[in-house]
Amino acid sequence: MTTRVLTGIKPSGTPHIGNYLGAIRPAIAASRAADTESFFFLADLHSLINTQDPLRVQRSTLEIAASWLAAGLDPDKVWFYRQSDIPEITELTWYLTTVASKGLLNRAHAYKAAVDKNREEGVDEDAGVTAGLYMYPVLMAADILVFGANKVPVGRDQIQHIEMARDFGQRFNHVYGKDYFVLPEAVIDEAVATLPGLDGRKMSKSYDNVIPLFAPREELKKLVFSVLTDSRAPGEPKSTEGSALFQMYQAFASAEQTAAFAQAFADGIAWGEAKAQVFERMDAELAPLRERYNALMAEPAKIEALLRQRGQQLREQFAIPLLKQLREAVGLRDLSTIGQTAKAEAVAKVALPLFKQYREKDGRFYFKLLDGDGQLLIQSEGFDSPRDAGQLIAVLKQAEQGDALQSELFKVEGEVEPVLAALAALREAAAKD
Amino acid sequence: MTTRVLTGIKPSGTPHIGNYLGAIRPAIAASRAADTESFFFLADLHSLINTQDPLRVQRSTLEIAASWLAAGLDPDKVWFYRQSDIPEITELTWYLTTVASKGLLNRAHAYKAAVDKNREEGVDEDAGVTAGLYMYPVLMAADILVFGANKVPVGRDQIQHIEMARDFGQRFNHVYGKDYFVLPEAVIDEAVATLPGLDGRKMSKSYDNVIPLFAPREELKKLVFSVLTDSRAPGEPKSTEGSALFQMYQAFASAEQTAAFAQAFADGIAWGEAKAQVFERMDAELAPLRERYNALMAEPAKIEALLRQRGQQLREQFAIPLLKQLREAVGLRDLSTIGQTAKAEAVAKVALPLFKQYREKDGRFYFKLLDGDGQLLIQSEGFDSPRDAGQLIAVLKQAEQGDALQSELFKVEGEVEPVLAALAALREAAAKD
Repeated sequence: MTTRVLTGIKPSGTPHIGNYLGAIRPAIAASRAADTESFFFLADLHSLINTQDPLRVQRSTLEIAASWLAAGLDPDKVWFYRQSDIPEITELTWYLTTVASKGLLNRAHAYKAAVDKNREEGVDEDAGVTAGLYMYPVLMAADILVFGANKVPVGRDQIQHIEMARDFGQRFNHVYGKDYFVLPEAVIDEAVATLPGLDGRKMSKSYDNVIPLFAPREELKKLVFSVLTDSRAPGEPKSTEGSALFQMYQAFASAEQTAAFAQAFADGIAWGEAKAQVFERMDAELAPLRERYNALMAEPAKIEALLRQRGQQLREQFAIPLLKQLREAVGLRDLSTIGQTAKAEAVAKVALPLFKQYREKDGRFYFKLLDGDGQLLIQSEGFDSPRDAGQLIAVLKQAEQGDALQSELFKVEGEVEPVLAALAALREAAAKD
Repeated sequence: MTTRVLTGIKPSGTPHIGNYLGAIRPAIAASRAADTESFFFLADLHSLINTQDPLRVQRSTLEIAASWLAAGLDPDKVWFYRQSDIPEITELTWYLTTVASKGLLNRAHAYKAAVDKNREEGVDEDAGVTAGLYMYPVLMAADILVFGANKVPVGRDQIQHIEMARDFGQRFNHVYGKDYFVLPEAVIDEAVATLPGLDGRKMSKSYDNVIPLFAPREELKKLVFSVLTDSRAPGEPKSTEGSALFQMYQAFASAEQTAAFAQAFADGIAWGEAKAQVFERMDAELAPLRERYNALMAEPAKIEALLRQRGQQLREQFAIPLLKQLREAVGLRDLSTIGQTAKAEAVAKVALPLFKQYREKDGRFYFKLLDGDGQLLIQSEGFDSPRDAGQLIAVLKQAEQGDALQSELFKVEGEVEPVLAALAALREAAAKD
């Protein structure tokens, strides 16, 4: 069975090489696995929690979309879409909100960190905290549950959010008595390396030590040459251990290339020469990405069209049908279906078999039994009074066996079975009323 | 100017006479005021906070819709709709969530009451509290702000919610630098009477002392005759003070009728006779409502169609255009408009006036000024060097007055004004670059 894997991408400007190696490249590689249906979305609704700069939101969304496509995400093979194009996500967020336990949200790491910081500073514990930060796990649960994701690759700090999504989904399933939601599982890839930055610390925008993924060749060269090294002279053996430069090379090289590079270190390669090799190795992989990225950025209308088209397909294929089910589940229903139930019952009554009493021109009283379609099942002889006919009908109505239908006072038309079935249906209907 | 008045109706089963007198009748009367555009909505998304019984949600929505229509709400004159038919409301809820202060939500009465109760019981203060109860004020703010309501009639206990809606709206306006939202005002009608129930306490389902608004005539009679009275005998004067029966009469009678009834009390009317009069007075007003209610309930498809139609109209007229604006405001924008801006700038550059320097066959250097469309504005004489031509161009670029254009070195083609405008455009563009 196909496994649905969902990855959220926060639009936060152009990625750096650390993002590429730690998140983008492995996620794209994983999306190529057989039996996997991948969902990658630009989490623009989430980004509103962190930034209130509309130009930044727009530009970051475009840059991140172009980055992933440039890095090899194939939009024909995976679902690549923008969160805000699926209005069902905010609707689902409300349904989950009604079942989500507030106590659980209180324990969310991001919220607790904000509270701890406020406590340290001696201010109100919710000072400066928006409802957005607090409700973020519910929106995230909606992202996951709306497409029935089985697996969500996340960092360790995000495991809790997946657990919350499970909790909300399970609660809803329980309250409304059906497995409307697939319960997702977190997938942690322990092997993902963190890359050191220019100064040897983890590459991070907040340390201002990053190499932008799509830096032009000359800028890339300059940055690689600025990577911090020790002061060993050419000819002195160099340690690969803890060398940022070595780790950068390794991240872009095959095992053989890496071994050769390690040997060069031991052989005392000059730092300038080592940097030149790192730069060429990186540029060999990144040049085509950079070219694609620039081409994509030059035609944002194409990305917009792609995202819209995929969003619409996803809505039609998943979100709209699911939300239709959920609205039924919670009781947001077509009011006329109450009437339809009543009508259905009325139709059922019309379709019941029917004893009909009548008087013929000969002055005598008769009865007949018709089935729901008006087919004659029993035809009586004539009686002197309607009361006599009525008494026989009352007896007949109790008939459960074929021999009760043997009488000279009436004649069974056709088989006995349909007559017994008709009488049973009448008894059942009488018991209901 | 038309005032927009918005009233939310929680679908919670068939209303009783207390609801009718205290809420439905006055709201419908107010909706007939001139210069008022009324919005009445069935708050079914809210009801999910209180009940998780889908059949009850569906049936209550139908019953409450039929009740208000039967009581005289004119769907051709007011906006009568169902909250869940406006998906923009949950989307707006998210945008408001991102600006709403959590500290403010902590102070909501309904939430605080739940916390107080938990504290008294010695359990965790959020025990059993859902995120729905907590976030309810944000959803309510979206209900109000999405249609730009100016006034929201509410009970005293709801004033706080209107203040929160103002706060969230104002914050959004402030953060995104424009008055996207009208700030609503609460309207408290102090005059609204609370009706006593069968036992003399306030009429309320929780006291089990209600008279259902649409009770059949015989049931209504039985209930009115069961209203608690004192044991004064026929002929003894009776007090109108604190008499539930008298208050019921008053609520349905004119001032004259009420005065006559008070006189009858003073004259010692028998309780049985008084009850008969109350019953007939009530039935005179309620019988047509009851008839309309039964007719409406028999055709739920009509109500469904009405609600859907009005919801669609509201979306098109208000919600969709507003949300389009809001998405622009927060930065959820068409990515291709980034490119358009760039292109627009490029086009603007092309369209700028242009000084063109060139050399003729006579070996001399010339210049001309063309406007954005290539029309000739200035044609120079020939100069010995390009430098001479350039110096004159530099001088000309500063020209702000017509007399600066009087020279034997060049000739202005046509009017002077377009030339000055072209030079000004060039200066402005230079200042930008």
